[in-house]
Amino acid sequence: MDLLSYQSDFISYLESQKFTREPKNLYEPIGYILQLGGKRIRPILTLIAADIFSGDYKEALPAALAVEVFHNFTLVHDDIMDDAPLRRGNKTVHEKWNINTGILSGDAMLILAYQYFENYEPIVFQKLAQLFSKTALEVCDGQQLDVDFETRNDVTIDEYIKMITLKTSVLVAAALKMGAIVAKANEEQAQHLYNYGLNLGIAFQLQDDYLDTFGDPESFGKQVGGDIIENKKTFLYLKALEVSNTTDKESLQALYNGKQKNNSDKVATVSRIFKSNNIPQETFKLIEYYTNKSFESLNHLQISKQQKEGLRAFGENLMSRKV
Amino acid sequence: MDLLSYQSDFISYLESQKFTREPKNLYEPIGYILQLGGKRIRPILTLIAADIFSGDYKEALPAALAVEVFHNFTLVHDDIMDDAPLRRGNKTVHEKWNINTGILSGDAMLILAYQYFENYEPIVFQKLAQLFSKTALEVCDGQQLDVDFETRNDVTIDEYIKMITLKTSVLVAAALKMGAIVAKANEEQAQHLYNYGLNLGIAFQLQDDYLDTFGDPESFGKQVGGDIIENKKTFLYLKALEVSNTTDKESLQALYNGKQKNNSDKVATVSRIFKSNNIPQETFKLIEYYTNKSFESLNHLQISKQQKEGLRAFGENLMSRKV
Repeated sequence: MDLLSYQSDFISYLESQKFTREPKNLYEPIGYILQLGGKRIRPILTLIAADIFSGDYKEALPAALAVEVFHNFTLVHDDIMDDAPLRRGNKTVHEKWNINTGILSGDAMLILAYQYFENYEPIVFQKLAQLFSKTALEVCDGQQLDVDFETRNDVTIDEYIKMITLKTSVLVAAALKMGAIVAKANEEQAQHLYNYGLNLGIAFQLQDDYLDTFGDPESFGKQVGGDIIENKKTFLYLKALEVSNTTDKESLQALYNGKQKNNSDKVATVSRIFKSNNIPQETFKLIEYYTNKSFESLNHLQISKQQKEGLRAFGENLMSRKV
Repeated sequence: MDLLSYQSDFISYLESQKFTREPKNLYEPIGYILQLGGKRIRPILTLIAADIFSGDYKEALPAALAVEVFHNFTLVHDDIMDDAPLRRGNKTVHEKWNINTGILSGDAMLILAYQYFENYEPIVFQKLAQLFSKTALEVCDGQQLDVDFETRNDVTIDEYIKMITLKTSVLVAAALKMGAIVAKANEEQAQHLYNYGLNLGIAFQLQDDYLDTFGDPESFGKQVGGDIIENKKTFLYLKALEVSNTTDKESLQALYNGKQKNNSDKVATVSRIFKSNNIPQETFKLIEYYTNKSFESLNHLQISKQQKEGLRAFGENLMSRKV
């Protein structure tokens, strides 16, 4: 399991795809967003899975690219919906071009993702496309729930976990399963790998929520406190409502319901309430719960000890990230 | 070839699909746009093709639905891009809900379209999905060209025909070919049917352009003169620039480049220039050219004389429409 080879081979493969097709105004934004970088975690997971089950990870490059193009499609459309000006430190597509370009180039990316599966024989093609459609629709469901939560005051922690499962984890899980499908692993084995990814994805998103508030502003890619400023009902907020005393609870609700003049005051007050209620520790506990749940799936995999250790190390590395 | 049965069976099948899935805010707009009606020409073409080649048109209902859902997806996203308040006399999705809902529900529709192909065995599934992806990407290309043309003053008639071929005709053609694929017609026969649809689609769009300016305001579904108001460089406009004298040409260019205070004056003047330059007759000639080209493909089809007459009658009926 050679993560650096997976990454560099994926990037070479991505760069070999020329998004220079006409009309230029449709394909140029696609090339732009795809070369903005990122860790390429999802396509690497596809390659890991293929390598484990067949030893030939390069065979999985088109499927890995489908996953990455789809992920970037969701970023382009989500950034329009969130009115976000920046993505990975650069202008978002709708900011650099315009909203219509963001919509249409995003649509084309979703279709392109399906086209990469055409590299495979009919049975593999159908399995990949079927899992992809199911997953893509779940991601839409998750995005809609996220939007719905903005105007709801009765979101539960369970609902929140369901939302991040749909919006984030199913794609991580499907990325792995696609690699297993390309490598012709049996369905049961592929499903265990899926479950490993599903729970790891939840842990990953909870980690992201933690870092959004408590990450190092120097190294965290996004604005620290962004979730608080946008009144996002993350686990941190929902848990704080559950465990805090009436004073803290009322402060939190007031801060999340009203429009604040001073964002940095708001972020400071909310962070203080989170800390004094041990929310970071509660979050770590939940991250650990889902990480362990993820690693439990490894026991069911009929793969070498070394490969299991590789998957475990990948998960641990992901969870120890500070950015 | 029983068009009324195709239509009513298609509508029953569409209505049997419940778009009541959760989250409600994602699926309700999909149910809404799909029940706004329309003639359902594209799915009917899928059923016609399947009936011709296998006699079992009901088998093609899922493919027909995929085509209709995709077509409506393009309407939802195009209406956002065009800032259109009305569709078939009702509020557009982004008007009734909001732009974010229009984007996300549209995305879900594109994915749903692919899912309907899962009703077929792997080889048919792959053929359908492959043709669908190719076609969907061409429709995006056509939409982008249409947008690009708005700010260009050197659009040629050939480029215009290419744009409407991509934006409109390829889907009409693919709708037919999908029916042929479901019915397991051979590739060459399926391609002749595709060509029949492709040229018919071009004739259909030219007819639409004519009606947009010269249709009966009482019966035409959209605002008569809409293309003129929006400075659309249709065949009518491009041909007028080609054949008119300097005075008319300069009037047209001035009217299409400046912002007009009075739209009805603009529509009246442009219509007058079109008429005095015989543009309606030129348009009829081109419609006839593409209709005949479409009917030529019928000669290559190994189907009964009656079926050929049915396809010809369908085309003639489409071309004689006044609305």
